[in-house]
Amino acid sequence: MSTPLSHPDPVTMDVLAIAAHRDDVEQTCGGTLLRMASRGLRTAILDLTQGEAGTRGSAEERAHEAAAAHLLGVSWREALDLPDAAVENTLVNRLKIVRVLRLLRPRVVILPYWQARHPDHAAVADLGYQACFLSGLSKTPVVRPTAPSAQTTEPSLETKIAEFEAKGTGFSPYISPPDTTGALAPEGNSLTSIQPHRPFKIVYASLYADVRPSFIVDITPFIEQRFQALMAYRSQYANQAAGSGLFVPEEEIRERIVAEARHYGQLAGVRYGEPFVQKEVGLVDDLTLLPVQSI
Amino acid sequence: MSTPLSHPDPVTMDVLAIAAHRDDVEQTCGGTLLRMASRGLRTAILDLTQGEAGTRGSAEERAHEAAAAHLLGVSWREALDLPDAAVENTLVNRLKIVRVLRLLRPRVVILPYWQARHPDHAAVADLGYQACFLSGLSKTPVVRPTAPSAQTTEPSLETKIAEFEAKGTGFSPYISPPDTTGALAPEGNSLTSIQPHRPFKIVYASLYADVRPSFIVDITPFIEQRFQALMAYRSQYANQAAGSGLFVPEEEIRERIVAEARHYGQLAGVRYGEPFVQKEVGLVDDLTLLPVQSI
Amino acid sequence: MSTPLSHPDPVTMDVLAIAAHRDDVEQTCGGTLLRMASRGLRTAILDLTQGEAGTRGSAEERAHEAAAAHLLGVSWREALDLPDAAVENTLVNRLKIVRVLRLLRPRVVILPYWQARHPDHAAVADLGYQACFLSGLSKTPVVRPTAPSAQTTEPSLETKIAEFEAKGTGFSPYISPPDTTGALAPEGNSLTSIQPHRPFKIVYASLYADVRPSFIVDITPFIEQRFQALMAYRSQYANQAAGSGLFVPEEEIRERIVAEARHYGQLAGVRYGEPFVQKEVGLVDDLTLLPVQSI
Amino acid sequence: MSTPLSHPDPVTMDVLAIAAHRDDVEQTCGGTLLRMASRGLRTAILDLTQGEAGTRGSAEERAHEAAAAHLLGVSWREALDLPDAAVENTLVNRLKIVRVLRLLRPRVVILPYWQARHPDHAAVADLGYQACFLSGLSKTPVVRPTAPSAQTTEPSLETKIAEFEAKGTGFSPYISPPDTTGALAPEGNSLTSIQPHRPFKIVYASLYADVRPSFIVDITPFIEQRFQALMAYRSQYANQAAGSGLFVPEEEIRERIVAEARHYGQLAGVRYGEPFVQKEVGLVDDLTLLPVQSI
Amino acid sequence: MSTPLSHPDPVTMDVLAIAAHRDDVEQTCGGTLLRMASRGLRTAILDLTQGEAGTRGSAEERAHEAAAAHLLGVSWREALDLPDAAVENTLVNRLKIVRVLRLLRPRVVILPYWQARHPDHAAVADLGYQACFLSGLSKTPVVRPTAPSAQTTEPSLETKIAEFEAKGTGFSPYISPPDTTGALAPEGNSLTSIQPHRPFKIVYASLYADVRPSFIVDITPFIEQRFQALMAYRSQYANQAAGSGLFVPEEEIRERIVAEARHYGQLAGVRYGEPFVQKEVGLVDDLTLLPVQSI
Amino acid sequence: MSTPLSHPDPVTMDVLAIAAHRDDVEQTCGGTLLRMASRGLRTAILDLTQGEAGTRGSAEERAHEAAAAHLLGVSWREALDLPDAAVENTLVNRLKIVRVLRLLRPRVVILPYWQARHPDHAAVADLGYQACFLSGLSKTPVVRPTAPSAQTTEPSLETKIAEFEAKGTGFSPYISPPDTTGALAPEGNSLTSIQPHRPFKIVYASLYADVRPSFIVDITPFIEQRFQALMAYRSQYANQAAGSGLFVPEEEIRERIVAEARHYGQLAGVRYGEPFVQKEVGLVDDLTLLPVQSI
Repeated sequence: MSTPLSHPDPVTMDVLAIAAHRDDVEQTCGGTLLRMASRGLRTAILDLTQGEAGTRGSAEERAHEAAAAHLLGVSWREALDLPDAAVENTLVNRLKIVRVLRLLRPRVVILPYWQARHPDHAAVADLGYQACFLSGLSKTPVVRPTAPSAQTTEPSLETKIAEFEAKGTGFSPYISPPDTTGALAPEGNSLTSIQPHRPFKIVYASLYADVRPSFIVDITPFIEQRFQALMAYRSQYANQAAGSGLFVPEEEIRERIVAEARHYGQLAGVRYGEPFVQKEVGLVDDLTLLPVQSI
Repeated sequence: MSTPLSHPDPVTMDVLAIAAHRDDVEQTCGGTLLRMASRGLRTAILDLTQGEAGTRGSAEERAHEAAAAHLLGVSWREALDLPDAAVENTLVNRLKIVRVLRLLRPRVVILPYWQARHPDHAAVADLGYQACFLSGLSKTPVVRPTAPSAQTTEPSLETKIAEFEAKGTGFSPYISPPDTTGALAPEGNSLTSIQPHRPFKIVYASLYADVRPSFIVDITPFIEQRFQALMAYRSQYANQAAGSGLFVPEEEIRERIVAEARHYGQLAGVRYGEPFVQKEVGLVDDLTLLPVQSI
Repeated sequence: MSTPLSHPDPVTMDVLAIAAHRDDVEQTCGGTLLRMASRGLRTAILDLTQGEAGTRGSAEERAHEAAAAHLLGVSWREALDLPDAAVENTLVNRLKIVRVLRLLRPRVVILPYWQARHPDHAAVADLGYQACFLSGLSKTPVVRPTAPSAQTTEPSLETKIAEFEAKGTGFSPYISPPDTTGALAPEGNSLTSIQPHRPFKIVYASLYADVRPSFIVDITPFIEQRFQALMAYRSQYANQAAGSGLFVPEEEIRERIVAEARHYGQLAGVRYGEPFVQKEVGLVDDLTLLPVQSI
Repeated sequence: MSTPLSHPDPVTMDVLAIAAHRDDVEQTCGGTLLRMASRGLRTAILDLTQGEAGTRGSAEERAHEAAAAHLLGVSWREALDLPDAAVENTLVNRLKIVRVLRLLRPRVVILPYWQARHPDHAAVADLGYQACFLSGLSKTPVVRPTAPSAQTTEPSLETKIAEFEAKGTGFSPYISPPDTTGALAPEGNSLTSIQPHRPFKIVYASLYADVRPSFIVDITPFIEQRFQALMAYRSQYANQAAGSGLFVPEEEIRERIVAEARHYGQLAGVRYGEPFVQKEVGLVDDLTLLPVQSI
Repeated sequence: MSTPLSHPDPVTMDVLAIAAHRDDVEQTCGGTLLRMASRGLRTAILDLTQGEAGTRGSAEERAHEAAAAHLLGVSWREALDLPDAAVENTLVNRLKIVRVLRLLRPRVVILPYWQARHPDHAAVADLGYQACFLSGLSKTPVVRPTAPSAQTTEPSLETKIAEFEAKGTGFSPYISPPDTTGALAPEGNSLTSIQPHRPFKIVYASLYADVRPSFIVDITPFIEQRFQALMAYRSQYANQAAGSGLFVPEEEIRERIVAEARHYGQLAGVRYGEPFVQKEVGLVDDLTLLPVQSI
Repeated sequence: MSTPLSHPDPVTMDVLAIAAHRDDVEQTCGGTLLRMASRGLRTAILDLTQGEAGTRGSAEERAHEAAAAHLLGVSWREALDLPDAAVENTLVNRLKIVRVLRLLRPRVVILPYWQARHPDHAAVADLGYQACFLSGLSKTPVVRPTAPSAQTTEPSLETKIAEFEAKGTGFSPYISPPDTTGALAPEGNSLTSIQPHRPFKIVYASLYADVRPSFIVDITPFIEQRFQALMAYRSQYANQAAGSGLFVPEEEIRERIVAEARHYGQLAGVRYGEPFVQKEVGLVDDLTLLPVQSI
């Protein structure tokens, strides 16, 4: 990744995690992203909202903190402008994600599980799945804007990605304000000028869902770094007055994070794990290579 | 096993399929055994009954036909003497299987799924699981015989395995009559003289069960040989008067076998497959290596 | 149907299959439609989109091919103008379907199952169900158009149905461009001028859904004709460059179709079958007439 | 049934309900038996125990009361001698039932649902299923008696059935003491002298099980008679001191019985119904004949 | 409640039931509301539509009848203006409910179960849940009106609640026409001027859903009053020509209501009950206080 | 019980936990027993085996260690003589438990969940349930001993309980060897001389089962003592050579125990919890007292 320009397919990501809010990925699949990065894979995160409805902190603070997410070893991170606490599965929203999928071309997409306490999380599961589907079609539905899009001087997503490539760095700092009109941009940048891309695999991060996982990813070597990545969101997790009745005290967060990782790890016979659901059945090459002891 | 000391672990099997009747394995996981053998793994089959209650054919015929099961490439096959159509999960029956598990020391055990039209199949799922559990205990429960065991001139299972090793061949022809008293044999041969063995993995062949599989094994290259292995049971599948109302006409068997293999293959994106259920969750090393396309 | 005008309720359909794309019905319930037609019942198909987002072929080609669907023996077929790959369960879309339901007055409606790889299929399950519900209300909600509807010279759906009746033929060729404004038409044609109609039964075609069916329809005598009806979609199934990585080669389609029909047939003890889910429990007159052998 | 001797297969029953205790059938499927009888079908009941462990009444009282079960219109009723409150799925018990199945040759067998508060009910589900399976085998497993069977002067079950046929009456009064040794009887009467019989259909009465039924049988015309049949068990349902803390007061029984019938009836759109579970999927001839309105 | 003005938090409700149509609450949880009121708790009902699409009666009639719902002992009842038979989970609709939640500040919210024959009922489950979530956020998403809201002389919801408090009565008669623009009102009354409120508990009334309940509320003492509250909807339940094919005859309604209450009561060992589903697991203080006998 | 006649109900226990092996209760519900004891309730433990098949330690060592279980605050603990690793649900075994149930007369019985890796645990769930059922019958089935019971000088269970009562202490030290013949004892002590007892509630401890619990018990104040109670089994949990490949190293046990307690606690919004399954639905007095926050 040091010489991305000589890379034949420079922005093809291996794994893209899509979530509603800036610390969701840190909560549910940060260890998995670290494991993937440690294997030399390119990972990315797409947060769909700016987090402006959070009880604690401002959107700007969370944007700043997201930058600290290089702790997760991701190559790219961006936040769209979907309204926080009101994410909906609309065609316009799907197309905003389609553009990112076609630019990043991930093999695997991680989505939140489709049942969740927070309505945004459940919405992202459907929204993200349908975006992956649309992204693979060569004839994408056309969106007729219902209102003239506001003038914006924000660089386009393509421009940002080009800059990211040119810089050769592994992390794209958050650029504010967000790209609100990309899906409707009329020329050059339009969706139809980008090749369709169909992710091969979609999995659902189910850490906070009350559901039996399909599989576990062993994150034992990454448990500490995963925790630090989450704690980078000081606006959320540092002790403070706002939301003190809703939030877990800072000193309990480590125990909580570790306990869940341990619980899911134990399901699969490893120390710390993160759980995922896949809709498909599995395919096994060799029964003697099956992991997870039966008795 | 005549010279076990010079052979560090002479009869360690990779995969052992346990089933109630002599053609059950051919019906549900023959392709998987062929695939495993093609990878150089050692496979074995333990049929628990002699098949004496079958509507068609005699136990002797099925024994003879089972010998033709070298078509599955297995290294070893034996049939115990549990009563056909009355298999029960008793301690004595478990211990009969424990002895085989300790002699063959398989890493993977394939059992029939635990819900089935035929009561024997369901019984073997529980019976086999508990035998695997017992086999791993260094302090196995003692069975007090409720009746004096009949005198038998049948060579012991150990002797048969030793002969099998000495011959160096890949297939142990069925030896009739079966070893009915092994579990209770008092000396030398007793269970406590064999080291405990705990299979690492237990999976359930679910081809004829009305259940969603956990995973599929791709048997595309083996579909024809798997079919031939099944058809070796001429007493069962050749057209004949007995049971003609119960059995599928011979000319339909191929279509039927192929259709099920195709159905399960399609679930996993391959041409022909055999389905299995595992009770454990999975463990995944690398999300980008996950098979089976999502969209 | 030779004298439809003298028929007291000439356009009452027995079965209406609603699907997203022009070949969906052929894929999931073509054999069932053939069986119903062979019993002298009147069947119809409503495709909701023009299929313009399909990777292969154009909307026009698929329209032409749909005409070949007389192979399914249906009395009527029409395609609405919902956007392909973006079908949504909106009130406007529901009302478009309500109009068809009130004109055709089917006793049974077949919908796709509510979980599916293709988002349109899942959407049609909910959309179709709610349309059936609305169709039965004498006081239908009013839709206030959010934008002036484009002027159209397209004959109304009612006109088309009248023409169909007058012609006395069993099949209505597709008429392009579609009726996009019917739901909002102000006079004569309006929804409120048509008597409400509540279909008695709604069932879900689940052939490609990974779900246990409620029941099977035996399509054994129709397997070949069902296959030919599907193959009429040459733009989709003939071998070609476009989408060759996504589509099954032509020569495998027969095996695939037959394998699924066989798999579901075997669940119910018949040779070839198509699976359906119903939400209701069953009601049985006579236990001795229950089909499908238990043991 | 007025001339049973001229009947080609005089004792072929249409429906046989098997239950643990003498009033179980009245509780769970009495209305269904009445409906079947009203269609001219021959129905029978096999109670497996004498009910000697009941808190209220004696085995003799219940036997006497069972005779009043002609209120259910059954052609035959008998009670075996399995121990009340200790029914187990043993081979000996299966064979006792096999004998009855082979003598009565029912097309449909009704069993209790396999999950129940009373362990006997759950046991009968498995025991009865396996008996049905065994009954169809031409080569039934042999039972070696573990103890000499007591001498009995009880007429054999065959004798009783012959007498029942000769009498030409519709109801076989209970004969005490029960036939305890039939399964082991050595000559003439033995199982192997009776032709195998495989019931076509097995369904599970689920009225008191907390499970969604597969289907409902409409018992609206029979609700009163079903209630009277139950109330014939005066030893159980009349108000009395014994078990007054466990039993519902007599005056509430009608409301309770009617409420459950109404609840299950409403599931299927009829007034009163009894629920059943079947393990198989259904098979439907004609979608337009499907009962139970969807919306 | 006699002196609401001196009450420190005068309009804090204990339980708020939200439903689509004016008699839904009477159908599914009227007994529970009566029980809560009998314990001295303050209860309220929010109907989301005016019921204008009902086959029987007019919106005005149902409004009048709802006033008779003081039979349920509720302190407050109001109907919003969502379109009957077209309730959708939109942000605008959520915000209309948020306003009510913040004004009434209920501890418990009762919603309809999320699967239902009537699409409105299913929609309310999601819509209501998301409204509860939004209501707890201090930074609520802003809704940009897509059309100028019509001028209204209707008093605001706040005014109505103030009046209700001043009157000191236990029941707020329905005021027509409804408050259609509250969610968008610009000043004083706006959502942001009201403190956020997060209901502690959300439960789902599942009486007409075909689902196993999490728990039952014993309504035995209230069965008669619950029935009278329902029958107050004369426009719906009195015998009449309109919808006579769809509606249960009046004389059967009592039996039907009582039968369902009895069925669910019996599940929990009480005479009459109403069923609810909760998504959360339970929390038990003391095992010896657990109700509902196991055997 | 030294003066049982003057003592109406001297040894009525509030909670009895039944498990297969001496440390099972410590593993799955130790915190709950501590919580119950802290409320002044009387708790007891019945281990069904002597643990002689354990890989580590001897039966004697485990007996000695069980004495240390006063750390759980139980009033009574005893171990029966069922064979370790071969627990079966036989009538004789049920009657051994019935005797204990009738002597201790618990209101609540805790059993292991019915699906488990260890076959004994699953067996105890069924065995214990059926024993609870039998215990409530006034007419218990008679067991005919199949072999003369060995002479024993062991004091009877009744004697032990009398001694326990006389001592007035809260804990009955384990007495070895176990009472092996109690169920068959002919006089005085026999089952029929003890009044039937039907436990009111049966719950299943599901800590190591992969199943969603019905409810959680908050064990936050007891987490440390629960851990110490488990660690009292030095023969099992101290680091040692035997079974080192099977057992978790000592230093990880605390993290593991705490992680599971935390995971289940979080499900219910408390810090540490133990999970249970109940088969019955719940019954709720007051919706406003429902614990566990919904959003």
